[in-house]
Amino acid sequence: MSMFSKILCPVDFSESSAAIAKTAREFALKFDADVLVVYVAPSMIQYEIFDLPAASLPQLVGDIVTGAEKTMTEFVDKHFSDVRATGKVVSGDAAEAIVNLAQAEKADIIIMSTHGRQGLNRLLFGSVAEKVVKTSAVPVMTIRPQ
Amino acid sequence: MSMFSKILCPVDFSESSAAIAKTAREFALKFDADVLVVYVAPSMIQYEIFDLPAASLPQLVGDIVTGAEKTMTEFVDKHFSDVRATGKVVSGDAAEAIVNLAQAEKADIIIMSTHGRQGLNRLLFGSVAEKVVKTSAVPVMTIRPQ
Repeated sequence: MSMFSKILCPVDFSESSAAIAKTAREFALKFDADVLVVYVAPSMIQYEIFDLPAASLPQLVGDIVTGAEKTMTEFVDKHFSDVRATGKVVSGDAAEAIVNLAQAEKADIIIMSTHGRQGLNRLLFGSVAEKVVKTSAVPVMTIRPQ
Repeated sequence: MSMFSKILCPVDFSESSAAIAKTAREFALKFDADVLVVYVAPSMIQYEIFDLPAASLPQLVGDIVTGAEKTMTEFVDKHFSDVRATGKVVSGDAAEAIVNLAQAEKADIIIMSTHGRQGLNRLLFGSVAEKVVKTSAVPVMTIRPQ
């Protein structure tokens, strides 16, 4: 059996995600691996800083997840048409969700960007890749956007 | 041409290096890549904290490099006998040396451990992998020792 038969590929649909997808696809072809593409939507608690009305939070997160699922389907169709790939949208702390999902799905490697979306999210939530590298039990391939 | 035709594989000859070598070898076979195995000996400045006589420092570093070159030859013979692999010993700050060497040697990926030798070195010099992930222009695959 191949050393890498399941790839977890976290994306945030930013510009760098296309490059990550390209590498994950090439990797999948070489190792005949399955790809699980994942987007982690921020959990409710991460919006509390904005002091929104409490009732609107679940609605907001729900809308984000629904929108992300549509975007994910298009992303997987576009970048992984010739390999076995599935898209998944979860919510929570990005690094924790990625590491937990890698374990739950028995992924053999995580392929992700060192930098996510610019701006507020990045400032607030810190480096997801750094935390994943530090805590993942499986190998992590990090790719820096050009 | 393959996406990954040259692999830089930093090792420190600790227990985890064998696992790193195994992954790098498998990778080299799949991508028909060359492997450059590198050991970074600490530079003189990193020993100054020990307050050794100044004259003994170049001697010390020279001895370490010579010893490491012998160990490297054995390591490459043992772990990379069936792929195109070369060993190299340099000295300096480990993360900087690895990132610079990846650029100078036009490596397409760095495959390394998240943890080096335990003990004093680790406490003094911090996480090499973390710094490499943050600064490398090429993809970095980090593997956590089991």
